[in-house]
Amino acid sequence: MELRIDRQALVPVVQQIVDALACWLCRGEVPPGTRLPSVRQIARINLLSQSSVIEACERLVAQGVLASHGAGFIVAMPVLAAQGQQDCPRFEGVEVKQGRTSGELKLGCGGLPESWRETDDLSYAIRQVSRTDMAGLFNYSTPLGLPALRQQINKRLKQLDILVEESRILTTAGASQGLDLIVRTLFKPGDCVVVENPGYSLLFDLLRLQGVSMIEVPRTPCGPDIEALEALLAKYRPCGIFINSFYHNPTGSSLAPAVAQRVVQLAKTYDLLVIEDDVYADLYSGPGTRLAALGIDDNVIYVGSYSKTLSSSLRVGFVVAGAGVISRLAEVKMISSMGASRFCESVLASLLASGAYRKLVQRQRQRLSNDREAALQVLEDAEWEVFGKPVGGLFIWARSRMSDYAQVRKQAQRFGVLLSSATAFSPTAEASDWQRINVAYACDPRARAFFQATALDRPQAF
Amino acid sequence: MELRIDRQALVPVVQQIVDALACWLCRGEVPPGTRLPSVRQIARINLLSQSSVIEACERLVAQGVLASHGAGFIVAMPVLAAQGQQDCPRFEGVEVKQGRTSGELKLGCGGLPESWRETDDLSYAIRQVSRTDMAGLFNYSTPLGLPALRQQINKRLKQLDILVEESRILTTAGASQGLDLIVRTLFKPGDCVVVENPGYSLLFDLLRLQGVSMIEVPRTPCGPDIEALEALLAKYRPCGIFINSFYHNPTGSSLAPAVAQRVVQLAKTYDLLVIEDDVYADLYSGPGTRLAALGIDDNVIYVGSYSKTLSSSLRVGFVVAGAGVISRLAEVKMISSMGASRFCESVLASLLASGAYRKLVQRQRQRLSNDREAALQVLEDAEWEVFGKPVGGLFIWARSRMSDYAQVRKQAQRFGVLLSSATAFSPTAEASDWQRINVAYACDPRARAFFQATALDRPQAF
Repeated sequence: MELRIDRQALVPVVQQIVDALACWLCRGEVPPGTRLPSVRQIARINLLSQSSVIEACERLVAQGVLASHGAGFIVAMPVLAAQGQQDCPRFEGVEVKQGRTSGELKLGCGGLPESWRETDDLSYAIRQVSRTDMAGLFNYSTPLGLPALRQQINKRLKQLDILVEESRILTTAGASQGLDLIVRTLFKPGDCVVVENPGYSLLFDLLRLQGVSMIEVPRTPCGPDIEALEALLAKYRPCGIFINSFYHNPTGSSLAPAVAQRVVQLAKTYDLLVIEDDVYADLYSGPGTRLAALGIDDNVIYVGSYSKTLSSSLRVGFVVAGAGVISRLAEVKMISSMGASRFCESVLASLLASGAYRKLVQRQRQRLSNDREAALQVLEDAEWEVFGKPVGGLFIWARSRMSDYAQVRKQAQRFGVLLSSATAFSPTAEASDWQRINVAYACDPRARAFFQATALDRPQAF
Repeated sequence: MELRIDRQALVPVVQQIVDALACWLCRGEVPPGTRLPSVRQIARINLLSQSSVIEACERLVAQGVLASHGAGFIVAMPVLAAQGQQDCPRFEGVEVKQGRTSGELKLGCGGLPESWRETDDLSYAIRQVSRTDMAGLFNYSTPLGLPALRQQINKRLKQLDILVEESRILTTAGASQGLDLIVRTLFKPGDCVVVENPGYSLLFDLLRLQGVSMIEVPRTPCGPDIEALEALLAKYRPCGIFINSFYHNPTGSSLAPAVAQRVVQLAKTYDLLVIEDDVYADLYSGPGTRLAALGIDDNVIYVGSYSKTLSSSLRVGFVVAGAGVISRLAEVKMISSMGASRFCESVLASLLASGAYRKLVQRQRQRLSNDREAALQVLEDAEWEVFGKPVGGLFIWARSRMSDYAQVRKQAQRFGVLLSSATAFSPTAEASDWQRINVAYACDPRARAFFQATALDRPQAF
């Protein structure tokens, strides 16, 4: 078993072993119950220390991929997803079976693969907080959120040219709660707002829940279509617009500086509240003009998250806005939930302060960058149409040139690949043949086989 | 320094030392900066091990009450609450200053004192989860909440005669989110519901936020006033009623079985949705008829919490209801927050499964029971009027017989005692001279001095 470990990579060696083993197992060449080569043998062939191999195997045991067996490890039984399920589930947590792993490749899903997750720093920070922070263990947080955390968030905002007082930052239980607080506090039933098409399905759900009506502006590779937007504003006079500015879900596209400028100008002209959803910000470090950098005091609200990078379990995100808005959101946050978990806030603050988070996202960025390049190549080889070429983030938006869309889904099923839902990204749930491709899954052999099978000139090869 | 440790008590010795030291410091006989007697000396006088004394001191360092100084400990500077603040803050987390302790006694507050909190089991469970549970570290939880946690919650519900399938249990980010989900999902603006007076202020805020109008039913020591309730139902035809069934906030009173029966009958007659808030359930183990035990399938929804006993920081609570309601609440929960923290859910599940939680609440119950008896005696000595005699929970509802209410608040300020807000427990924010007394604070020397000063026959003694 040759694992191809790259000792120059930013990704720790143990993590690389985990990934390589997971990949080898996923290919399905080894039936469940098979005994792995001995730790000593794997270590010798790949010039690794036995302790690294053992650590990697133990992480896979924790994930349910392997099981301990005598002195070694065996392959655990993979479990197929529910019969008839052909799409990635609507809520990411839905399909996870305790201690088991789904047999299908979640090509269309919204998060990083479990095999990319790194436990060491997070686990260390958790243990430290549990030992030293009485208030973190027991108390409610403060209405705006833990001061030490908001201070760290502010440092990161400065790097994005978003210059605000810490009192303008409100922590939330994930970006989800941030969007929810904004929708329920600042909009009332019957209000009308602009959303991007394609866009984020849970935002559409939230707006529907509050009885807010949606007008669609097409998303271009540079942000919302400005011509179309201006026409909509003049015609419908909506009171707000939601924009996922960078590494947009689902297209992976980012706001061009000129578009950002125009959006903020239009917001002033039409007295429009702009909600900038930037939850993928940390997955790339290139230049870019945030809407919030142009107008946080007036009518731009900024939403951030740590669910995409560090952990979706901690449920910590944040909102940045003018003083009046923050005070209204904080009041509703406390009334409706008493705030985020102070423990989770403390853990995050500690990881941000120690620099461990910065290094983690550096590794993720490099890995995503490699995978994105490779994925774009795979898509090109398979002659798929690609919507812009994303420079950061998790997603590529693409579609097969096969005319028969049902055929594409059939091929996905054949290779054990879960596609994104055809209707999830449309505000009106209109079906589309565009696919959200998660780059972290796109180079898996199953994805490659699927893409090849959908190439125009060779369906007969399968 | 004699600490009076009771080796027969359920409360661990280290915790007793913490409490005794905190009590000694709070009395203010020792100015900040004073060096404590040596660990060896404290241990010898009180027949304790030095390691127990050191552990207790270190917990007080973590709370900011003591500071390390050379080989020993000194008293840290106590900080007075903000100038002009005379009431307990509206949100419990508000006034906590990092690493410092407020100088005032929060006699009217809603939670257990920090000195009652026990770190060992919680910290251990946290470390275990951080080491062994990859999904707990990183993933979203499932829409209904972690199955292992819901299984444990169900065991506890059985003891309360609430017999349901696990699929009827939905975890929430604290009971706050539970109530919020219920209000926003099941009621619409313009709806009318019955609330208890006095009652829980954040519930009133939630209902106002949703535009739901409130009718008040008086709370009696046996639950809502049934005669008054029936008249209200006939007259206004409200669609719901919120009842804090056991160890009611703020009166400490509990539902009599006959009242519970009548409420459920009335709910059937008038097609009324009953929301039973039972967040103090675990603070007493005596007999009692839950509304949910009489009608969960029909129109009773039950809300529970772990914030009052284990930790307010974890933000884990739950809702029990019929299948249709649970499915609607779960949908809104996922859309608005993607659920509770899976990590916190795992930690709680582990403490429930190991029995550590059961033992913790046993200790809390015994301690509360002692303090409640003592507090009722103190109030009797001071000739206060008491609303019923609570048998469980945290609160006694009482008022001084002094005719001048301003004089009562003046005495509280004089002795460094924070009273509950005069308007917090009324749905219409009407001022009242009744006080919510937290029994865990009522025997503190400052509280005793305050109560004595308000006794009718001896204001001249001060």
